[in-house]
Amino acid sequence: MPPSAQRLAWISGFTGSWGLAAVFRDRAVVFVDGRYVLQVREQVDLNVFTPVHAHETPPPEWLEANLKKGERLGYDPWLHTESGIEQLRAAATKAGAELVACAGNPLDTVWEGRPPAPQAKVAVYDEAHAGETSASKRARIAEDMRKSHLDAAVIPLPESICWLFNVRGGDVPHTPFALSYAILHGNGEAEWFIDETKLTHEVRRHIGNAITVRAIADLGPALDKLGAAKARVGLDPAHAAAWMFARAKAAGANIVRAPDPCLLPKACKNNVELQGIREAHVRDGAALSRFLCWLAKEGPTGDLTEIDTVKRLEDFRHETGALKDVSFESISGAGPNGAIIHYRVSEKTNRPVRSGELFLIDSGAQYEDGTTDVTRTIAIGTPSAEQRRNFTLVLKGHIALAMARFPEGTTGVQLDTLARMALWNAGLDYDHGTGHGVGHYLSVHEGPQSISKRPDATPLKAGMVCSNEPGYYKAGEYGIRIENLIAVKPPEEIPGGERKMLSFETLTLAPIDLALVEPGLLSPEERDWLNAYHARVRAALDPRIDAATRPWLTEATRAI
Amino acid sequence: MPPSAQRLAWISGFTGSWGLAAVFRDRAVVFVDGRYVLQVREQVDLNVFTPVHAHETPPPEWLEANLKKGERLGYDPWLHTESGIEQLRAAATKAGAELVACAGNPLDTVWEGRPPAPQAKVAVYDEAHAGETSASKRARIAEDMRKSHLDAAVIPLPESICWLFNVRGGDVPHTPFALSYAILHGNGEAEWFIDETKLTHEVRRHIGNAITVRAIADLGPALDKLGAAKARVGLDPAHAAAWMFARAKAAGANIVRAPDPCLLPKACKNNVELQGIREAHVRDGAALSRFLCWLAKEGPTGDLTEIDTVKRLEDFRHETGALKDVSFESISGAGPNGAIIHYRVSEKTNRPVRSGELFLIDSGAQYEDGTTDVTRTIAIGTPSAEQRRNFTLVLKGHIALAMARFPEGTTGVQLDTLARMALWNAGLDYDHGTGHGVGHYLSVHEGPQSISKRPDATPLKAGMVCSNEPGYYKAGEYGIRIENLIAVKPPEEIPGGERKMLSFETLTLAPIDLALVEPGLLSPEERDWLNAYHARVRAALDPRIDAATRPWLTEATRAI
Repeated sequence: MPPSAQRLAWISGFTGSWGLAAVFRDRAVVFVDGRYVLQVREQVDLNVFTPVHAHETPPPEWLEANLKKGERLGYDPWLHTESGIEQLRAAATKAGAELVACAGNPLDTVWEGRPPAPQAKVAVYDEAHAGETSASKRARIAEDMRKSHLDAAVIPLPESICWLFNVRGGDVPHTPFALSYAILHGNGEAEWFIDETKLTHEVRRHIGNAITVRAIADLGPALDKLGAAKARVGLDPAHAAAWMFARAKAAGANIVRAPDPCLLPKACKNNVELQGIREAHVRDGAALSRFLCWLAKEGPTGDLTEIDTVKRLEDFRHETGALKDVSFESISGAGPNGAIIHYRVSEKTNRPVRSGELFLIDSGAQYEDGTTDVTRTIAIGTPSAEQRRNFTLVLKGHIALAMARFPEGTTGVQLDTLARMALWNAGLDYDHGTGHGVGHYLSVHEGPQSISKRPDATPLKAGMVCSNEPGYYKAGEYGIRIENLIAVKPPEEIPGGERKMLSFETLTLAPIDLALVEPGLLSPEERDWLNAYHARVRAALDPRIDAATRPWLTEATRAI
Repeated sequence: MPPSAQRLAWISGFTGSWGLAAVFRDRAVVFVDGRYVLQVREQVDLNVFTPVHAHETPPPEWLEANLKKGERLGYDPWLHTESGIEQLRAAATKAGAELVACAGNPLDTVWEGRPPAPQAKVAVYDEAHAGETSASKRARIAEDMRKSHLDAAVIPLPESICWLFNVRGGDVPHTPFALSYAILHGNGEAEWFIDETKLTHEVRRHIGNAITVRAIADLGPALDKLGAAKARVGLDPAHAAAWMFARAKAAGANIVRAPDPCLLPKACKNNVELQGIREAHVRDGAALSRFLCWLAKEGPTGDLTEIDTVKRLEDFRHETGALKDVSFESISGAGPNGAIIHYRVSEKTNRPVRSGELFLIDSGAQYEDGTTDVTRTIAIGTPSAEQRRNFTLVLKGHIALAMARFPEGTTGVQLDTLARMALWNAGLDYDHGTGHGVGHYLSVHEGPQSISKRPDATPLKAGMVCSNEPGYYKAGEYGIRIENLIAVKPPEEIPGGERKMLSFETLTLAPIDLALVEPGLLSPEERDWLNAYHARVRAALDPRIDAATRPWLTEATRAI
């Protein structure tokens, strides 16, 4: 989110990555999730805002219990999805209150010194990286749309638009997309609603005549036109703004609730994308290995802090010459900070890396050929038996998922358990998902697939990239997470079998700290997996690292 | 379903356990599922009925494609659930046709010689078996209802009513329920809509004053009364007839779509029920072991047929002196018949049990203290290496589920994969669920829980009884299934762990054929489980079997 859109921070002071405020004449609340219950109390004026834990009391539940009969609660229909508003509206109705769309956002009229909207130039994204022309993508999605009898579909997500048009932007940190909207028509032509100043001549040449550039203000009239033609228009209630539904409906369009049609095709990477992602992981693994080698030497001195490690790792990635950005703010947690799942180091919390503690670093890079996301947990000095046991249980889950074979149609919730069984068996668990989708030089979190406890109707398909990141967190002591990215391989014949099975290719290449592995807890198959993985890491990275790192890498990837 | 309700068989000749017919002036179709595609073609007049495979073309899809604009399709609103009709109606509307509820069933007016409706006497079900009085059950469900602001709830399922009122019936084979409906009120009082001639004085004394007996024809007026009072009435769209929704709505009731409120409490067996179920399984396991011992001797002679085995097993169960009924028609499949998942032997298909083949028998019993359901696969003579491998893969899945530990909130879909992993890894799978819920001296299939690939929002809770029945089927050759019933144990502390975990208690007690186990494919933990299970089987059954069976049982349950 660009600074110009950070309205919650402006009105409340709260800067977390998710939040929602409701301001009344006589009271105000700010909803935050479990990550931010402490932070919010430090950032907001508690005389004005009452923090509410959104997992304990979700906003609809709070509205139902706290809206007064006859109250009218306004909302900015550009800032809420249709699904979100439907839930809030149902709750308001139960309370005898009313939810009212505002014509403009009241904050914007009084926000002095509001930063300007970002205007980063859009760049052409080479077909050499994308592996498919925009025309081809548009043609095949338009064909899907015609099969669903859609005349047009609104593309609400900037990631989808960048993928569809083969462009990238720079409007926000860490995710190279351009804020914009689009409408794709059943003939494969498109309208792109974007601040024109972002478009260079090169981009205009690239997009050609089949994509018409319009101002964002023209989106309303475009929906009106579809309405006047009684068009069947696909709109994604989970991602499109409530405003779009209201406008299309008012215009008389025949709205078909359907997912953003780019979501699934974008998630299934083609072979060119996968090849780029593999190369990005070799490059990134070499940088990470140089970092881990450096950490092995410098960590035990006690002279490093969490911030030092983040800087040094970013330096190594810069030295590849290919780093565009980090893919998210690194999570660098020493000792007990590693147990805070979404920890972000600040000057205030910055902690030295100390011998005798575990150190967890979750980081990633944006390269033009791929996006990475990797977590390693490192023993600084000698780990305890308990730490070795728990790390090995997490590793067993990681390996079980990495080795899984499964038939077509299998969803993430069916595989999530594999990553947890060893922990569950020991009376342990972790309170986050096992895997999220990852974009291709786009968002490090993308749908529609996921691997988690939550029911999920999206089957895993060949070419999807996910994280594999089980963990264990001992509050106040240490955190463990082992994260590699994995790609779904096409169905393969199994010797002696009858049905083709999907499986995963592990993409991330970096040593897993053997000082934390208790070999006696691994089955022969698990040990074979770990040794084969390390042999692959060594073979792939050895040509890409410096002489100083080489002996360390050889040792770090030895067979056990 | 009693013979008086077998309208599909009467009009079409098709006798499968699931089906649906649509009859037009100029055409007629009968929908069947994969089990019955061959059978239906033998049973119906193909000049009149066109069979449709309901998995390939579900009825709503067929209606959308085949109803003609303006056609009016009637249905009997007593024979379809509200959810079912909503789907059919949406499809009909898309086709420009109309779905119309008929006032009476047109078949009934022309069905000559229709069997009378069953009038089996209802019996009191002892509190010694039920473990809780009906008054207590009604009080706690009424409290749940008040929390959901329900004034009343329709109980559409006969199983739920029998459980709630602590009675059992005999209207249909194999499932001891009494066909009836009920309304439970928020004060714990109930109305029971049932043919009064089924009720003995004893039952009337048992139900007392808080349960008012009414004729089934009085259900409509009772709904009208709730409507007139503007009551909030719980109705289960998945189980209640569309008729009930229509009547309650017309009467002005405030319909709350909610599951049958007995479903979850009935599924979570109390300690008295569980103790009864355990005793039923010792009794049943002894009978089954006598059968398996007999089969070990007689099977290889080649003189037995599938029907002989079914009769002999039922005899052994009768000899316990406690058998009320079998809990379903036994599946007794020799050789290739074992590969037909829902095989029911008939005189026509009856096959000899032959040496060199596998024999699969899936059967169960109704005892007053519990319902059983067990499958064993037996090698007649010497099995092949492939059969041993595949049996062992199925066994690995069975053991993985039996040994699982999992946190509260875990659903069946999260555990289903455990039963399949060994097969998936070998390129194999089975096309049925891994586990269904099982009632307590009621239906052998009950919800709401299940263990299958299908997304499912019902967490497994302490006291739920499920089957654990992975399998493998080689068409034309043999079938393998290993089925035990399992009960969810309450959450327990794990030494060295932090979170309590649920787990399963295996209830079924009968040897698993060691001739089919390839010990080299089992992990040490799996082998330990098998040996411990067999030791438990031996200890529990030894006092309950005859001297002739004892040496066989000792050998069949030896440690490997």
